[in-house]
Amino acid sequence: MSADILTLSAIELRDRLAAGQLTAQAVTRACIARVEARDPEVRAFSWFDPQAALAQAERLDALKASGAPLGPLHGLPVGVKDIIDTEGIPTENGCPVDAGRVPVRDAAVVRRLKRAGAVMFGKTVTTELAFLHPNVTRNPNNLDHTPGGSSSGSAAAVADGMVPLAIGTQTGGSVIRPASFCGITGYKPSFGAICKEGVLVQSHSLDTLGTFARDPAGAALLADVLFDPTEGEGGEAGCRLETAASSPSDRAPVLGFVKLPGWERADSALHGAFDALVERIGGQVVHLSLPDVFGDAAAHRAVINAAEMGYHLKRYLDEGAAHLGLATRTAIAEGLEVPAVDYLAAKAIQAKMPEALVPLFAQCDAILCPAAPGPAPVSLTSTGDSIFNGLWTMAGTPAITLPLLKAENGLPMGVQLVGAVGRDADLLAAAGWLWSKLKTG
Amino acid sequence: MSADILTLSAIELRDRLAAGQLTAQAVTRACIARVEARDPEVRAFSWFDPQAALAQAERLDALKASGAPLGPLHGLPVGVKDIIDTEGIPTENGCPVDAGRVPVRDAAVVRRLKRAGAVMFGKTVTTELAFLHPNVTRNPNNLDHTPGGSSSGSAAAVADGMVPLAIGTQTGGSVIRPASFCGITGYKPSFGAICKEGVLVQSHSLDTLGTFARDPAGAALLADVLFDPTEGEGGEAGCRLETAASSPSDRAPVLGFVKLPGWERADSALHGAFDALVERIGGQVVHLSLPDVFGDAAAHRAVINAAEMGYHLKRYLDEGAAHLGLATRTAIAEGLEVPAVDYLAAKAIQAKMPEALVPLFAQCDAILCPAAPGPAPVSLTSTGDSIFNGLWTMAGTPAITLPLLKAENGLPMGVQLVGAVGRDADLLAAAGWLWSKLKTG
Repeated sequence: MSADILTLSAIELRDRLAAGQLTAQAVTRACIARVEARDPEVRAFSWFDPQAALAQAERLDALKASGAPLGPLHGLPVGVKDIIDTEGIPTENGCPVDAGRVPVRDAAVVRRLKRAGAVMFGKTVTTELAFLHPNVTRNPNNLDHTPGGSSSGSAAAVADGMVPLAIGTQTGGSVIRPASFCGITGYKPSFGAICKEGVLVQSHSLDTLGTFARDPAGAALLADVLFDPTEGEGGEAGCRLETAASSPSDRAPVLGFVKLPGWERADSALHGAFDALVERIGGQVVHLSLPDVFGDAAAHRAVINAAEMGYHLKRYLDEGAAHLGLATRTAIAEGLEVPAVDYLAAKAIQAKMPEALVPLFAQCDAILCPAAPGPAPVSLTSTGDSIFNGLWTMAGTPAITLPLLKAENGLPMGVQLVGAVGRDADLLAAAGWLWSKLKTG
Repeated sequence: MSADILTLSAIELRDRLAAGQLTAQAVTRACIARVEARDPEVRAFSWFDPQAALAQAERLDALKASGAPLGPLHGLPVGVKDIIDTEGIPTENGCPVDAGRVPVRDAAVVRRLKRAGAVMFGKTVTTELAFLHPNVTRNPNNLDHTPGGSSSGSAAAVADGMVPLAIGTQTGGSVIRPASFCGITGYKPSFGAICKEGVLVQSHSLDTLGTFARDPAGAALLADVLFDPTEGEGGEAGCRLETAASSPSDRAPVLGFVKLPGWERADSALHGAFDALVERIGGQVVHLSLPDVFGDAAAHRAVINAAEMGYHLKRYLDEGAAHLGLATRTAIAEGLEVPAVDYLAAKAIQAKMPEALVPLFAQCDAILCPAAPGPAPVSLTSTGDSIFNGLWTMAGTPAITLPLLKAENGLPMGVQLVGAVGRDADLLAAAGWLWSKLKTG
């Protein structure tokens, strides 16, 4: 029974919960059992309290029994990255300096989760301050490999079936890359689509909240609740994204295959897998090139990230440099040295990127590219290369990765689709189409 | 006849032109005569072509004779600061490096002027790159005194009756201060209210277009045409601001008198004049204090200005350092050294300012304060002190100065009113009330 529950998609779980075929407590118990069996090895959770999760589930079941209207995430356990504040529950930002830190208020997204009837199931492990210094999580597909970062725990927990849904953030490649490495769907919406109040700020021009699920419809279901169309805390956004992902239109989308900067140094296995993928998709693929302004995007993104990290996280250097990982310490210190003119030049490049993509999106519905340069590396000291992610974080475009490829070692490799800024539903429709064609077809 | 025309306000001129009591050619000829008589001494214009101005006036008179609908500035000569691009007409940014520079396209505001039926009368002198290094203009009230800067020529031309209206820009105090020194009305709208396309960028977070006239209604008339409610080039904004300035409501506004940072070092003459002013206004004045975040606003504004100036104007240092004034050269070079973290800290302060003013604007309709620390100094090597202006440029609040006071040496001193961001019409209503009470009452 437990095992059955763990194989269901978020949408299937949602529907069975709504129909009364499953209770929130049954779902939560199945997830708890999985965590207890697997997390001593995977280490996806930094905070996890079975009784607290069950207490929420019990309340939700009682709510349903009372006939009250149910939220769109009724009864679904959701993992929350540990840089996202949770009232009364430790939120330590993956950083020894913040050990024992307990927020007095939920982040905006956590408030939305609760209103939507989700079970706030636990806090998931993040790399230190959501930067590069790895934490304890391992890739559930092979424990010797990195799960990717910085949303390591969110990706690993969903990939291992411990939760159907999780929330993460991306400043470089921290949603798309761990999702690719762990073999699940990761979705980074358009910049600013989800309110960041109550989330650790690393780089305010880049930080983007995103969602993890096993399939695009699940990632969309969670995003629908978190999206912030009114910039306030008003009503829900409806199920626009889930509908797009679940019910692709009859018209097949055109996918623009782009060899991103760094393509040459990706795994040859990846090159082969993409050649085969493009052939499999067939006539719906066109070959496109990125505009010039994307050529140095990685360097400019790094400048913005460094300067803003220096500004927002300097206090960690001041208060606890000795406790920080080398990568974090070095990055903050270097960020303090970035000249404002370099920062402004990078910001000007960033501002040009959405406009520069207009000609590409006139030729395709979504850009098709790898999510990472290969499968998860054998390493617990690096979270891998975000070369195929940072440019999209910089541009603010929505991006989603689908677990459609496998390397020779059996590890998953993600297929990334990228949409035009603000057109998230179109991206999810393209993702839904590709998913139904290749995964379930 | 000429002399009569020059004494009329912009609104009176507009009405007589519309009624056919004056022709555009008669108005333009009067202005030309004034320039020819006075500008060899005042030096308000950097480019001035009587034939080009008359040709425009002739076309406008023909348009009226044809019965075509007239624009809201029909037949009114307007001076345009020489950092604002004009198609086919030199726009040299007050800088030897740009000698002979002729734009191929009008700035957005110049296109609006032309559509509104104005006569683009000439280009007015600016300090070098709209920064501190003075140019050739003198104060028409006393040629040994500075007209203020950087919109030196626009303020001097209106003050001397050469044009009824002019456009300028403010990054520190470049609209309010020269208007105060020259004895006219200067109006700096809310940040971003007027589109800056085609205007030299010195500091994109601070640069603000503004208007000069002899009275608040004139400044509002011109601003109504330049305001950009749709962010496009669509229809006119109507006459919302002019109506507010010309027809103050029956309810007298409450003015919040604030002693700004720097008040202690202002002229004692100014102190005395303000004491008398407050007494004259009587019960409509309340005494208020600025929120703490304004305490260091001047220093933070300088950081933003420097960093952005370094970024936008570095090419002038690269291409012609030897031709630049010392103040300009030094500022750009220092701007290149500003750390991004300092810039980001200053930007964070700036972002907090409008919100910090909310409690003040709950107690008053407009803030009342000096426009400058005294009358125009005896100097042609400095444009004076912008201590009472930069904080409002930084905050993005609308501000207007009215020529209501005189120093013992007979030179004018402005009374500045400041409104809440985005509530320009309310500010102009307060200005109209004060004007009618003290100037014409």
